[in-house]
Amino acid sequence: MKIIHLGGLGEVGKNMTLFEWNNKILILDVGLMFPEENMPGVDCVIPNIEYLKGKEQNIVGVIFTHGHYDHIGAVPYIFKSIIKPHVPVYAGPLTKGIILKRQEDVPHQPRLIINEITPNLKLDFGEIKVEFFPQAHTIPDNFGIVIKTPNGNIVHTSDFKFDLTPMYGTPTNFDQLKSIANEPTWLLMSDSTGAEDEGHSMSEKVIFENLDTIFSQAKGRIIASSFGSLINRIQQLIVLSEKHGRYVAIDGSTIKTNLEMCRNLGYMKFEKGTIISPKKIQDYPENKVTLICTGAQGEQQAVLMRIASGEYPYLKVKKGDTVIFSSSVVPGNERSVQNVKDEFYRQKANVYHYKMMDIHASGHAKKEDLREMINIFKPKFFMPVHGQYSMLSNHAMIAQEQGIPENNIVLAENGQILSLKKDYFKIESQTVPANYVMVDGLGIGDVGEVVLRDRQTLAEDGIFVIISIVDHKTGKVRNSPDIISRGFIYLRESKDLLAETRKKVVNIIHRTTGSGGAVNWNYTKNNIRNELGEFLFRKTQRRPMVLPVIIEV
Amino acid sequence: MKIIHLGGLGEVGKNMTLFEWNNKILILDVGLMFPEENMPGVDCVIPNIEYLKGKEQNIVGVIFTHGHYDHIGAVPYIFKSIIKPHVPVYAGPLTKGIILKRQEDVPHQPRLIINEITPNLKLDFGEIKVEFFPQAHTIPDNFGIVIKTPNGNIVHTSDFKFDLTPMYGTPTNFDQLKSIANEPTWLLMSDSTGAEDEGHSMSEKVIFENLDTIFSQAKGRIIASSFGSLINRIQQLIVLSEKHGRYVAIDGSTIKTNLEMCRNLGYMKFEKGTIISPKKIQDYPENKVTLICTGAQGEQQAVLMRIASGEYPYLKVKKGDTVIFSSSVVPGNERSVQNVKDEFYRQKANVYHYKMMDIHASGHAKKEDLREMINIFKPKFFMPVHGQYSMLSNHAMIAQEQGIPENNIVLAENGQILSLKKDYFKIESQTVPANYVMVDGLGIGDVGEVVLRDRQTLAEDGIFVIISIVDHKTGKVRNSPDIISRGFIYLRESKDLLAETRKKVVNIIHRTTGSGGAVNWNYTKNNIRNELGEFLFRKTQRRPMVLPVIIEV
Repeated sequence: MKIIHLGGLGEVGKNMTLFEWNNKILILDVGLMFPEENMPGVDCVIPNIEYLKGKEQNIVGVIFTHGHYDHIGAVPYIFKSIIKPHVPVYAGPLTKGIILKRQEDVPHQPRLIINEITPNLKLDFGEIKVEFFPQAHTIPDNFGIVIKTPNGNIVHTSDFKFDLTPMYGTPTNFDQLKSIANEPTWLLMSDSTGAEDEGHSMSEKVIFENLDTIFSQAKGRIIASSFGSLINRIQQLIVLSEKHGRYVAIDGSTIKTNLEMCRNLGYMKFEKGTIISPKKIQDYPENKVTLICTGAQGEQQAVLMRIASGEYPYLKVKKGDTVIFSSSVVPGNERSVQNVKDEFYRQKANVYHYKMMDIHASGHAKKEDLREMINIFKPKFFMPVHGQYSMLSNHAMIAQEQGIPENNIVLAENGQILSLKKDYFKIESQTVPANYVMVDGLGIGDVGEVVLRDRQTLAEDGIFVIISIVDHKTGKVRNSPDIISRGFIYLRESKDLLAETRKKVVNIIHRTTGSGGAVNWNYTKNNIRNELGEFLFRKTQRRPMVLPVIIEV
Repeated sequence: MKIIHLGGLGEVGKNMTLFEWNNKILILDVGLMFPEENMPGVDCVIPNIEYLKGKEQNIVGVIFTHGHYDHIGAVPYIFKSIIKPHVPVYAGPLTKGIILKRQEDVPHQPRLIINEITPNLKLDFGEIKVEFFPQAHTIPDNFGIVIKTPNGNIVHTSDFKFDLTPMYGTPTNFDQLKSIANEPTWLLMSDSTGAEDEGHSMSEKVIFENLDTIFSQAKGRIIASSFGSLINRIQQLIVLSEKHGRYVAIDGSTIKTNLEMCRNLGYMKFEKGTIISPKKIQDYPENKVTLICTGAQGEQQAVLMRIASGEYPYLKVKKGDTVIFSSSVVPGNERSVQNVKDEFYRQKANVYHYKMMDIHASGHAKKEDLREMINIFKPKFFMPVHGQYSMLSNHAMIAQEQGIPENNIVLAENGQILSLKKDYFKIESQTVPANYVMVDGLGIGDVGEVVLRDRQTLAEDGIFVIISIVDHKTGKVRNSPDIISRGFIYLRESKDLLAETRKKVVNIIHRTTGSGGAVNWNYTKNNIRNELGEFLFRKTQRRPMVLPVIIEV
């Protein structure tokens, strides 16, 4: 059995994992990552599927663990080029709904046929069988998988937390986990996201009770924002609103879509008449309304930001209103979230966020839970997955503490090939391509290192284009060179600098072309680029991208 | 008395505050802020000093509370334009050293004369006197100030924490605080940075003990990194190294400069022979060496990053080495720090960071300390300063809980004018300029909204310059237009798109100039910009900056 992680951007095995045996390939998840700060303009980063090119006929199935974008989001970019129409695809009902909705939103996508995963589904790929078990997370229909092989089971936990009282999700079924563990576990692949966090993860029940306290004390409107994909939390907020006699307005497209989908599947329950249109907020007494919306990450275009800046037409925040940020802050978003929070404080709202009180719980198991998971399965081999390398390392240490020998722990990175044999494993010396594939607009993978580096340079100090018209008979520059510059300096206030620059360029052209003979324009341009770059740096301590253009007429 | 905060970038009153009475102005601190993520290429943001232009002769003195850059860093950009040579300047000995060092590093700076603040210094500005009291923080020579006025004292805490056992800094002198509080406090201005954090701030003693444990267990080299300005922590690391028989190599320019300066002042103590050159690390047994370096924020060029990437010539990390991140992570740096951490885990080092164990303490008082500070001074008026608005708001709530009437609490922002009278205050309706002044290279304030917006656009989708030569007699485009594009798409792979673009531009020029009569080139260019922008967006879903150039020959 070979196991390969294709996706990544820092996190190992998060987006897409291959199980390969006897020329058969089973794919687990096809997700995306959101770009890092140094990837301006990039929409998302998707798994590199080079390795699968030419092996399309080997693919025997695709399984999705759950409906979060880091597990399903790359479908529109990858699927049609590698998954042939006859290949069976499996996903839980909500996951299926989310994938199909996304296919509708992206043009030119094939209609996908997706088989529904139910707790009792068994798949048969010849020598390999696959079964499923529900796992608590922050979204319904999250499944761990058991790959049954002649050498024992491979168990993949999916993203998970232990929660016996998740309020409106599936509680962890320890009996089922133990019954799966009755068969020998050859390899356990377990979610490492919380491996650096001490203790046990918090139950959604605690969150519910804390939110209940906030609701009890709230006298004005409640504006509650969370991730659109945190389905269970949204259900909690609706239930609490009903309990406290509040009508609920919902705004923000992901949240609205997910609500609709979950309602149709019977996963989201509320009384008839609870939900009102945001337009009607003004028609209700202030202590009778909750607005649930997107924007807890401080996203520029989200509803919460528009409320904060006073641009939201249906509600202006004032003293006595309550604003709840019921989500953690994704690294990189701290400042925007802080700015939104500051705005609400200025408007005299009562602001609650997860650092003040437990109104958000992670969807991932922490150290002590991870330890328990390893104890339940007592696997022969252990492979930490899902997380940055530091999390995998800490997870590996936990496994060692639980008695897994260091030599039986697989620390593999994206693109590495794990060859797993009955009694040993090795990481192959060759790797498969796993570099970032960036999506920008309609382009997939065409924004590479070059374009990205250019964007970074442009962002730092802008661009300086200088265009010279040269008379091809005399070799002299006609008129004065044209300068176009953006993001460098404010041109209107830099007349002297520009005049000096023009003179310099004319001199360089005359000097480098003056010797007669065939003119080497590249040589001239290089001279302009270097000398001008140095000159501008000396004058401004900035390094704009210098682009010389010479046109012979 | 008028009080005005000029600096900022989100934090109120952090960088520069004016006290103005009877046409006299006393300045407290002249600091800078580091830019936010949406300010590419910007080096720093400094206070707007418009308000002081024309009032230079009113300035009676400048006082620096302590030597951190957010309190002294704008001196080279601001001082010479507003502070006349005869105006007295005051700073603690280390603060003075840091300011003068910085003046040396920036060219064309006047020689400053700085008077040293000692605990007993008293300044006399006529009806106003000023006295000082030492405050514990993370750097020596941090002073709170007492402005004595006929209406009572104005007490400014500076950045501070309460710490009775700071190990190598000044312990909080509660007796002195209480004796100052024996006189009526008209206004207390207090550091709000920790106002959202529960409890008391942690003593450096706890940090010292935890670091001691790590040192006891370390078998290989220790690489410890922190902020270069966390002088007390660096002293701790040196003392611990001596205790455990380790020699200390120091690398990274801020850390080296600060060490030198502190040593000369007698603030940093170590035995002769403790410090070794980084070049000599290899000459010592692995369990006898500590390297203290910069880079705990994941800065690209810092020593720690070079060690992580294997480019540091004097030390390669291997199994058994210990890496300590002894600082918090500044928002925006999480990902880079995570990446550095991951590298060290890959290299099998033992990694310690502040989330795992208390090896960093903030330099700022937390809720219960702030409460105590208010109780000590029992001020008539209270003004939270230093912090984002949410911190000020929380600090204001603490003050209310301690019995300060809501009407006596001043929540003023940068640029607002507080008019403080004996028995009441008001925030003036007019404000002073407080917009961001950005420094980029040698330019101060010349990077404005326009340049910044251009840089953001360039970063997102790049630039597309199209140059057409038009025959002024025929009005026809000569040859084919030239295209220069950067950061948009990879040109070599986009030949068809470029050909289509050229054709489109030629058509637009011929169409818009074809009617005869005087040609309006701006009209033509606008047409190119709009139509081409739309065309490229349709083809790529990207919006590069389109710059049409038309040259008549």
